[in-house]
Amino acid sequence: MAQTDKKTIVLFSGDLDKVLAAFVIANGAAAMGDDVTMFFTFWGLNALRRDHKPATPDKTPLQRMFATMMPRGPKKLAMSRMNFAGAGPVLMKRMMRANHVMSIDEMIATAKEQEIKMIACTMSMDVMGLRAEELIDGLEFAGVATYLGEADEANVNLFI
Amino acid sequence: MAQTDKKTIVLFSGDLDKVLAAFVIANGAAAMGDDVTMFFTFWGLNALRRDHKPATPDKTPLQRMFATMMPRGPKKLAMSRMNFAGAGPVLMKRMMRANHVMSIDEMIATAKEQEIKMIACTMSMDVMGLRAEELIDGLEFAGVATYLGEADEANVNLFI
Amino acid sequence: MAQTDKKTIVLFSGDLDKVLAAFVIANGAAAMGDDVTMFFTFWGLNALRRDHKPATPDKTPLQRMFATMMPRGPKKLAMSRMNFAGAGPVLMKRMMRANHVMSIDEMIATAKEQEIKMIACTMSMDVMGLRAEELIDGLEFAGVATYLGEADEANVNLFI
Repeated sequence: MAQTDKKTIVLFSGDLDKVLAAFVIANGAAAMGDDVTMFFTFWGLNALRRDHKPATPDKTPLQRMFATMMPRGPKKLAMSRMNFAGAGPVLMKRMMRANHVMSIDEMIATAKEQEIKMIACTMSMDVMGLRAEELIDGLEFAGVATYLGEADEANVNLFI
Repeated sequence: MAQTDKKTIVLFSGDLDKVLAAFVIANGAAAMGDDVTMFFTFWGLNALRRDHKPATPDKTPLQRMFATMMPRGPKKLAMSRMNFAGAGPVLMKRMMRANHVMSIDEMIATAKEQEIKMIACTMSMDVMGLRAEELIDGLEFAGVATYLGEADEANVNLFI
Repeated sequence: MAQTDKKTIVLFSGDLDKVLAAFVIANGAAAMGDDVTMFFTFWGLNALRRDHKPATPDKTPLQRMFATMMPRGPKKLAMSRMNFAGAGPVLMKRMMRANHVMSIDEMIATAKEQEIKMIACTMSMDVMGLRAEELIDGLEFAGVATYLGEADEANVNLFI
């Protein structure tokens, strides 16, 4: 038997397919009664961006360029394989709907309902020039020490 | 000391190099006496496809297209880096042979002999339109709840 | 509470961004007093290559070709996304400096200072034709059994 029922997932990837896998595992564990913490870092932060871009007048040109080149929110994520300039995600989403699999937006909403702790990595936000107001509501903001504290309390820790 | 000797690996990737790494760890752990469960999801399922395509008359055109575009079995897997339109895997396999490293086919056979539990993710199969008869023998079929139950009993859980 | 304070990381990836994430987690854990073992395999070995190529007259032509095509050391690593033929890493490093994030070279030096155990996977070295003298000092050399022994003693095990 496990010593605790907590799970942590570092979501480093911003690929549609990997984001999907992360939320399926996280929501599955929460549905079984486990505490779950997701730590969003690097490209994984793109899954948390709002559709609409807020004004961020204090960004440097470099930060602005980075932010413009990265996908803004779940609807814009690419696939790790078979992306075909955006055709892959369209097909994948169609097959997800046909099989009654939730969209990423719905999975994020479910994660919130299930009180999954979603932490945005502040160091990655700094490096990539992302601001808190560009991300969805309901997040916590912390660094690697917080992640490690959560992982120490968990019996399953994944890096996706 | 570890509380249990069970290991689980989620094999999400269908890249030759990552599939290789997963089987090296899984077979290594089994050889040391550990229980091992591999959970094949998304592109990882491609490593389990049969060489020859069975008749699947009930597939939708979209499922058929997806299945056609994905690699069919270990011999067709690409590499995550330096694939060079298929030259990379040829070189990699030659260097594996030269160093007496088993092929993926041999590693899968060894995994079966060592009674590694290989579970194909049913949700991924649905989304990707893969049928049980397209996959090799000796698999179990289950979803994320089964994976989480296995992971709760293990002391090492990896996502590859 | 965790049963032990040991962490292991398999660093399979040689992408600048993933190597960075691995060292941030490893150095963070070591700073908190944890024992940390990093196991470098496949492309992850490229992060450990010396800038300057030593003479390796006993390599086969195939090994020589492989070694030439792979990045030599942290300064040459590409990114998993937005690489743009090398422009991405330049931007990423500039943004890391602007935010006072250590370079990979500095992170490796810090890992050594903190006595993080860095193990180079001998099977991968054989397959990729890399020799010990091509890698930086201070490494141990071992295979999957050693990794599994370390992982059995750890409470957090990641595959990056």
